Amino acid sequence: MAFSEFKPLDEKSLIEYIKSVPSLSSKLGSNLDKVSIKEVGDGNLNFVYIILGPAGSLVIKQALPYIRCIGESWPMTRERAYFEALALREHGQFSPEHVPEVYHFDRTMSLIGMRYLEPPHIILRKGLIAGIEYPFLAEHMSEYMARTLYFTSLLYRTTMDHKHAVAKFCGNVELCRLTEQVVFSDPYKVSEYNRWTSPYLDGDAEAVREDNILKIEVAELKSKFCERAQALVHGDLHTGSIMVTHESTQVIDPEFAFYGPMGFDIGAFLGNLILAFFAQDGHADQVNDRKTYKEWILRTFEEVWNLFHKKFIALWDEHKDASGEAYLPAIYNNPEVQQLAQKKFMEDLLHDTLGFGAAKMIRRIVGVAHVEDFESITDARKRADCEHRALEVAKMLLKERRNFQDITEVVSAIKKL
Amino acid sequence: MAFSEFKPLDEKSLIEYIKSVPSLSSKLGSNLDKVSIKEVGDGNLNFVYIILGPAGSLVIKQALPYIRCIGESWPMTRERAYFEALALREHGQFSPEHVPEVYHFDRTMSLIGMRYLEPPHIILRKGLIAGIEYPFLAEHMSEYMARTLYFTSLLYRTTMDHKHAVAKFCGNVELCRLTEQVVFSDPYKVSEYNRWTSPYLDGDAEAVREDNILKIEVAELKSKFCERAQALVHGDLHTGSIMVTHESTQVIDPEFAFYGPMGFDIGAFLGNLILAFFAQDGHADQVNDRKTYKEWILRTFEEVWNLFHKKFIALWDEHKDASGEAYLPAIYNNPEVQQLAQKKFMEDLLHDTLGFGAAKMIRRIVGVAHVEDFESITDARKRADCEHRALEVAKMLLKERRNFQDITEVVSAIKKL
Ligand SMILES: Nc1ncnc2c1ncn2[C@@H]1O[C@H](COP(=O)(O)OP(=O)(O)O)[C@@H](O)[C@H]1O
Ligand SMILES: Nc1ncnc2c1ncn2[C@@H]1O[C@H](COP(=O)(O)OP(=O)(O)O)[C@@H](O)[C@H]1O
Ligand SMILES: [Mg+2]
Ligand SMILES: [Mg+2]
Ligand SMILES: [Mg+2]
Ligand SMILES: [Mg+2]
Ligand SMILES: [Mg+2]
Repeated sequence: MAFSEFKPLDEKSLIEYIKSVPSLSSKLGSNLDKVSIKEVGDGNLNFVYIILGPAGSLVIKQALPYIRCIGESWPMTRERAYFEALALREHGQFSPEHVPEVYHFDRTMSLIGMRYLEPPHIILRKGLIAGIEYPFLAEHMSEYMARTLYFTSLLYRTTMDHKHAVAKFCGNVELCRLTEQVVFSDPYKVSEYNRWTSPYLDGDAEAVREDNILKIEVAELKSKFCERAQALVHGDLHTGSIMVTHESTQVIDPEFAFYGPMGFDIGAFLGNLILAFFAQDGHADQVNDRKTYKEWILRTFEEVWNLFHKKFIALWDEHKDASGEAYLPAIYNNPEVQQLAQKKFMEDLLHDTLGFGAAKMIRRIVGVAHVEDFESITDARKRADCEHRALEVAKMLLKERRNFQDITEVVSAIKKL
Repeated sequence: MAFSEFKPLDEKSLIEYIKSVPSLSSKLGSNLDKVSIKEVGDGNLNFVYIILGPAGSLVIKQALPYIRCIGESWPMTRERAYFEALALREHGQFSPEHVPEVYHFDRTMSLIGMRYLEPPHIILRKGLIAGIEYPFLAEHMSEYMARTLYFTSLLYRTTMDHKHAVAKFCGNVELCRLTEQVVFSDPYKVSEYNRWTSPYLDGDAEAVREDNILKIEVAELKSKFCERAQALVHGDLHTGSIMVTHESTQVIDPEFAFYGPMGFDIGAFLGNLILAFFAQDGHADQVNDRKTYKEWILRTFEEVWNLFHKKFIALWDEHKDASGEAYLPAIYNNPEVQQLAQKKFMEDLLHDTLGFGAAKMIRRIVGVAHVEDFESITDARKRADCEHRALEVAKMLLKERRNFQDITEVVSAIKKL
């Protein structure tokens, strides 16, 4: 067999590979010489090929043993592809409308074959920069998050199943470690990897590194990230891991998946919406001042949480007599105690969400990996201004998250700052 | 080989077994026909044999595929012996003076050979019932807990090592599940397993089952127990898992070990001290009113926490520049932030400890497994009276744990009730 050991593919060997795998070649049609291949990996870590055949299409994603955007100097286990495939399948089972189907997985080759999200699908972040409204975004993302998080938690699962799954995903430790470093550590210390819009934000970056209260709160979030196996989280749920059209919302790239705190996913998505919000002033021009669009973002932000809340509670109510071992019906046996339990759970989850969301914002402004929302603002002073305001909001949310009782209060606070 | 598959041993086959294992037989001396064997398993789950030879001694503990005190009707994996052996070795490495040495482990036979804790070692619970003061108990137990918990947490470990160890102990899920049921579930619902001193405590048991606030707080503790992999906890650290003499303190029986919240161990020990405290009035007689002894227990209770606090912080300070990934020295880089971090950590840990300790108290009064401290009070009315007061304290501690800033306040509250 030609692919019995790992080998990075190029466009030529890719065709050979596809020919050797019926579940892939069958998607494309009979004449494989008519196939076109394009590498589109605009992501940071991996190689992604779009393959168009006479009768169909697919995407091949391959992990190499290092981080693509940095190079071989930053090694990273290829096993991330295994966890990505596991998570795509697991989340896909619970939210099939919002996760691309996996056609094939090859652990030796660290290679996933999956549905091609055909045009006009684009990366949500790019849509947000272009000022496009997605009327179903809040509906779809709240659905995806409610279902993937609920069904992989102890609210639905037995202890047996949960611990078994937790153990399996402990194997994705290298990717968890990377998150720990770039989200919870580097931004709060002097690090060769950090960067920011200099000189404008030199003082802001230093202030982050010298804010004792902020650092104490980040320690708590980091410990939750490392220790709390609440649900199978995507682990990298920013607006660059979501592909959209007007009608469709698809979550890709769960290579950081592991059993972690639910708020880490919800926060990643909501935090990136706030980043998009603060970037809008940098994209405003005489044709479009982006005011209406900013309102749409904030409305979407609010709706995501409210719809998530509603859907999550609905799942909880619907399955409360099922196999989940967290809240046994014989104990939580009256409407008052059920409501109290759900209220406390959702309030704690909101606080986690705000904390993790804020941490994800901060790291995108003073850490190693920045976001195109800001990077595409060419005027550095203008960009710094947008980033500065986002950073102030993030610091406030991180430190004062426990004072917010619902998402409306958060929106007001964002508007005020 | 005679023991190539699992077989429950009796006194005769045990000798054959020992003869076939040099690391065991060598402990006893050359003439193995002069050996005496006594089964002493007063515990609930397993068989324990003391083997005395002409030149030495040892203990053999064997797990059968069910719970001993209930019988074959309650099956329980023999793999608990594997996790017990792992934990004895792991904890023994960090606190060798307080954990018996493991001579031999046989996974097929679910059998551990370990040091015999020779007389006058007795089970601490029996010593507490007899009214015996142990001057080094607080010192030793705080040392054991500080070291085993610190060194197996992310304060000392790398993420890599931590996740690897967490995954391994996820295998002990059946024992975790048992704790979930008997500690966090059964006492709060109608269950065939529950019992209490009836009829005196009928109302108390019902009040526990109908206390919505209590049940909400227990849900939070249960979720921490299930989800938070903070350190390798013993998992069953009551006063029946500790053997003592005046000078020696030895922790046995960690078959429930897993990566869980530190407060679960500290709470188990401290909660059982409070149970012993409230049982004293039932043991008072004309010769000894137990007043002085009650003071010693409370003093020990207070000292355990204070010494634990001191030792834990000392380990943290000593190793703060080592490999632990929770608080990187480049971030927690000034005395003020270090102190803030430690203060917050220890306060949260105190609250966890009080919550778990209280839950362990409650389950011993209205759940399936009771404690000899109370059971040995033959006058049921007197016993109920002791149990009632312990239960009131436990409910208060569980619900109001977050209002306590230090252990002195807890002692005052116990004295008041
Ligand atoms: N299933 C797919 N359909 C269409 N495009 C895709 C698909 N998967 C990935 N892509 C494209 O490839 C890019 C990188 O993919 P991604 O999974 O995010 O890789 P990385 O892990 O390197 O970030 C995406 O931003 C998107 O443009
Ligand atoms: N190493 C030992 N030395 C002396 N006695 C022991 C030793 N281990 C256990 N025992 C005795 O056996 C009893 C039961 O042991 P334990 O490990 O608690 O078993 P179980 O898991 O069944 O509770 C203990 O209460 C103690 O009296
Ligand atoms: Mg990506
Ligand atoms: Mg839908
Ligand atoms: Mg990726
Ligand atoms: Mg025991
Ligand atoms: Mg035991």
